[in-house]
Amino acid sequence: MPDRQVVETGYREFQQRFVDALVAVDPDARFHADRWDRPGGGGGLSMVAGGDSAIEKAAVNFSSVSGETPDRLSERLAIESDRFYATGVSIIVHPSNPFAPTFHANIRYFETDSGLAWFGGGADLTPHYLFAADAEEFHTALAASCLRHPVADYPAWKVECDEYFHLPHRGEARGVGGIFFDHLRDDLDDVWEYQLDLADTITRVYPTILERRKDTPFRAPHREWQLYRRGRYVEFNLVWDRGTKFGLETSGRTESILASLPPLVRFEYGYEPEPGSPEAELAVFLRAEPRSWVPDSLLSSGSTTLGRSHE
Amino acid sequence: MPDRQVVETGYREFQQRFVDALVAVDPDARFHADRWDRPGGGGGLSMVAGGDSAIEKAAVNFSSVSGETPDRLSERLAIESDRFYATGVSIIVHPSNPFAPTFHANIRYFETDSGLAWFGGGADLTPHYLFAADAEEFHTALAASCLRHPVADYPAWKVECDEYFHLPHRGEARGVGGIFFDHLRDDLDDVWEYQLDLADTITRVYPTILERRKDTPFRAPHREWQLYRRGRYVEFNLVWDRGTKFGLETSGRTESILASLPPLVRFEYGYEPEPGSPEAELAVFLRAEPRSWVPDSLLSSGSTTLGRSHE
Repeated sequence: MPDRQVVETGYREFQQRFVDALVAVDPDARFHADRWDRPGGGGGLSMVAGGDSAIEKAAVNFSSVSGETPDRLSERLAIESDRFYATGVSIIVHPSNPFAPTFHANIRYFETDSGLAWFGGGADLTPHYLFAADAEEFHTALAASCLRHPVADYPAWKVECDEYFHLPHRGEARGVGGIFFDHLRDDLDDVWEYQLDLADTITRVYPTILERRKDTPFRAPHREWQLYRRGRYVEFNLVWDRGTKFGLETSGRTESILASLPPLVRFEYGYEPEPGSPEAELAVFLRAEPRSWVPDSLLSSGSTTLGRSHE
Repeated sequence: MPDRQVVETGYREFQQRFVDALVAVDPDARFHADRWDRPGGGGGLSMVAGGDSAIEKAAVNFSSVSGETPDRLSERLAIESDRFYATGVSIIVHPSNPFAPTFHANIRYFETDSGLAWFGGGADLTPHYLFAADAEEFHTALAASCLRHPVADYPAWKVECDEYFHLPHRGEARGVGGIFFDHLRDDLDDVWEYQLDLADTITRVYPTILERRKDTPFRAPHREWQLYRRGRYVEFNLVWDRGTKFGLETSGRTESILASLPPLVRFEYGYEPEPGSPEAELAVFLRAEPRSWVPDSLLSSGSTTLGRSHE
């Protein structure tokens, strides 16, 4: 099993690097560090920014908790009640500019005293306006990172992401997806190396996209559409996201769990954008079958090195 | 069993009367009527208003649906798969003025072809600032209405309301409560009479409260607090409300189900109002044990006529 201390240190460093990368794009972002303790054991460090600058709200949260495995978790994992340890970093960025996409990622490690251990994580992008260039750059960076590690499986994790970040009650994708993986139990040292690479990858690629879009001129209707689309983010996180539901039901730290919610949101009955508009282009895209964003050549040329860790 | 046609007609008339009562308070409210059909059978009429007038958003929705009982409903009710019929009116009003409370109510009737039938419903008030006079007037009207009908049980239904409209992940009540009742299967003709009385009662009492508060002078911080408190409304409806969850999971009409969501909402990490402020007064109240809002004399003088329909 990986050394907890090594993983925790790696996660803490990633948290700081990601915050630094955001501040490099938005020097006016003021991150506030908020340390908290978990009554049952462990705690965390939430780094949250909000305000009128390019980043309207960001939460880059580290946690490291341990203790008796809650009953609901034992049931869910079908394990005997036991002591557990979990650490991870979760990130959400809601930019001010309607043309800049919302970003979400997390990487996490879990183990029980009985010897179970796994890594999980993912990263996905939620634009309010569809820019193919952003989606391609994002997915290509994730795919390239996977190709460097035989334990990683971009094609499968891309599909898992599309399936997870889906709103059944709307028949809509949340955004342009990314990757999602969980319960990686084999070759944990190699998975750890991959996670460090993933952390570097997203620390590079999202700030690049944010930098490109953050100063795009916009008018009130673009902002209205952004606030409206954020409503879908709220619906997904509160109705469908397993992590959020599980956290709220097991009395985790509510403020940290709900730090993902957008700062300002609009709900409107029966709203549909005008056909043919850029807003409608996104709406149509989200209701269609998921698209490939990576050149076939990248994936086929790398096929001999594409790892299939759980086949 | 009650005559479906009589119940439906009563509900449709109530919908129109309630809309008329809101328009009497806010002549600038523009209600838009939206008829919809349910693929499996039946449909509804949503009446929704939104804009810059005293009522920022209101939905007064009638529905009458029937068809094969969905599996999830059969499981939930522990009945054999069967045909069902359900009709009801649900109401939500989000006023513009931060000092005017949000209002929610619904009355409903359900039956299966195998002979099961019941009524349910309720009404509750969610202020952003605590006015004891409003809560007392609201509860006293509901209690008086119950006292006129031996099948109604204000004390029990007040407790059910407090228990239902509770946010476990916040340890907070949603608001000042009201009444909540469900599965009333006995004396259905008498329950129907009570429902008509309840409909009249809320058509009178909420517009009176709205009229009193809608023009209260306010400043930006009051508005900010209102938008922040609306976040709790969203959390309750999307995370905990059984009707919302059930509707979304069984592919009901999403837009009508989510018509309850506030028009504009603010989420802020770790926000706490200043101790001693009117905002903190509400926050403290919501975290305390539920309070009685009705004079003891009313309930004890009426105790001989207080019906206990399900004891």
